[in-house]
Amino acid sequence: MELTTLLYGIGLAAVAVNAASGVLEAGRKPFDLFGMVVVALAAALGGGSLRDVLLDRPVFWIADPAYLVTAIVTGLATFALVRLVRLPPRLFLLPDAVGLALFTVIGTQAATSLGAHWLVASLMGVITGVFGGILRDLLCNEVPLVFSGQLYATASWAGALALVGLVAAGVPMGWAALAGGVAVLAIRLCAIAFDWGLPVFSVRK
Amino acid sequence: MELTTLLYGIGLAAVAVNAASGVLEAGRKPFDLFGMVVVALAAALGGGSLRDVLLDRPVFWIADPAYLVTAIVTGLATFALVRLVRLPPRLFLLPDAVGLALFTVIGTQAATSLGAHWLVASLMGVITGVFGGILRDLLCNEVPLVFSGQLYATASWAGALALVGLVAAGVPMGWAALAGGVAVLAIRLCAIAFDWGLPVFSVRK
Amino acid sequence: MELTTLLYGIGLAAVAVNAASGVLEAGRKPFDLFGMVVVALAAALGGGSLRDVLLDRPVFWIADPAYLVTAIVTGLATFALVRLVRLPPRLFLLPDAVGLALFTVIGTQAATSLGAHWLVASLMGVITGVFGGILRDLLCNEVPLVFSGQLYATASWAGALALVGLVAAGVPMGWAALAGGVAVLAIRLCAIAFDWGLPVFSVRK
Repeated sequence: MELTTLLYGIGLAAVAVNAASGVLEAGRKPFDLFGMVVVALAAALGGGSLRDVLLDRPVFWIADPAYLVTAIVTGLATFALVRLVRLPPRLFLLPDAVGLALFTVIGTQAATSLGAHWLVASLMGVITGVFGGILRDLLCNEVPLVFSGQLYATASWAGALALVGLVAAGVPMGWAALAGGVAVLAIRLCAIAFDWGLPVFSVRK
Repeated sequence: MELTTLLYGIGLAAVAVNAASGVLEAGRKPFDLFGMVVVALAAALGGGSLRDVLLDRPVFWIADPAYLVTAIVTGLATFALVRLVRLPPRLFLLPDAVGLALFTVIGTQAATSLGAHWLVASLMGVITGVFGGILRDLLCNEVPLVFSGQLYATASWAGALALVGLVAAGVPMGWAALAGGVAVLAIRLCAIAFDWGLPVFSVRK
Repeated sequence: MELTTLLYGIGLAAVAVNAASGVLEAGRKPFDLFGMVVVALAAALGGGSLRDVLLDRPVFWIADPAYLVTAIVTGLATFALVRLVRLPPRLFLLPDAVGLALFTVIGTQAATSLGAHWLVASLMGVITGVFGGILRDLLCNEVPLVFSGQLYATASWAGALALVGLVAAGVPMGWAALAGGVAVLAIRLCAIAFDWGLPVFSVRK
């Protein structure tokens, strides 16, 4: 499979997974159907939109409506599923972690391919990975997961830096992307399982 | 009258109406004069700015300062009026509904004229119509009207889809825009009058 | 020294000063190291990013990573300093005021050099000056300084209008920028010292 086809598939999967995480979180709130769709769209498209606007690229879901359709369809399907089956409350943490990994890889790769500085490229990975989830949590009036104490944006940045470093070391983009994505997912899942966090500094009362 | 002249006039009217709605809401808060102007500008220019940034068009009030001047003048005039006359508290709901209809039409039309996919174009109408009001409500520390339960963004989306559908069916843009705008206004005013809302789903406690 | 070199130096200084103000405020919250860096970056790069996106210029810290490196290094250095020395709680008000002045000048100058209308250019100065601080305060869950009652955005706008007016009157850009920046700083510091504010209007209960 060609690299561009692979990245396209990963992109659609990331959008679907994040739309599902949005509905799984919004489903615990008294939202109407439209509100659900809005949260799904914000979670699925928010990070990549901010990245594209900052990089002055065409916004991905405007250039290719397949992403928009994927987000709406996955959101509605998740909604139907959630009405039928009782799901454990914190289930959305898993698709959220997968979405974080996929979006981090896509964002870093997109910025790298435009010739961005490695530090900028890694930050674009973090923005793509994190911003949709921040929007979702703000719309649901929850404290954003990013600020929850368990490693989240740090996991994204570590994976993005791994990707950029491997590419600089001559590793082909496909393998570097795989390694970076696995790193994000592994760190994030460990952070949830073992309550990993950076030390907190409170300088004065 | 030519279509472009008509749309230009509608645009200025929408900006004026939304600036007025901003001052009418901010007037109930202990804001200073500058704060009032900021709320008026956010309400009047926020939605269209986000649309233009996403579509990568020149931002409308930077390309043509007439919109900026209109927003500031209308905001100050509304402020003077509000100081002289006692107005009913929820009066801003009416200009807000008119602004929602006008901006929905303009946003959908702008995206359509750039060749956007119909689903993207209708969403651009919703973003143009809704985002300025969300900014206004956030700055005034009110729960955004969009999330209030009564049809709001749904009214905008219904009208935008009507516009896009009529154009696809061969109706000239002018008539399709009129029909779409009237649909938004009618649905929104009925939603306020009869407390229409989508059913709310709360999946679990 | 050439004008462009001077403006480049002012830009780096403004980024450093705002990154420091971010850490000084975040240092009073239970943030981890990554959260500190995020607040520093938002404060230092937020206003200019919004300006560049609205003006459709390349975002300054993507085009030139020196700004990004400056923000990260200054943020970490401030953090180290804050751990060693006990600093008075409201110290960040001073770098914040200097940053407001520098960013106002840069934003107004950047928009003017693109041929923007004077009203638009002055507003770009305000956006550049104010938006980073708003992001910082929102991330730290503080009421934004802009809405605190003491002159803040008004100081920025007054200085921006002075700059634009002096340039229109034939004063060279370098002197106009100096006068505008000093005006912002003087008004803001007086507002803090003497509790200057615009009159507040509360129209009805």
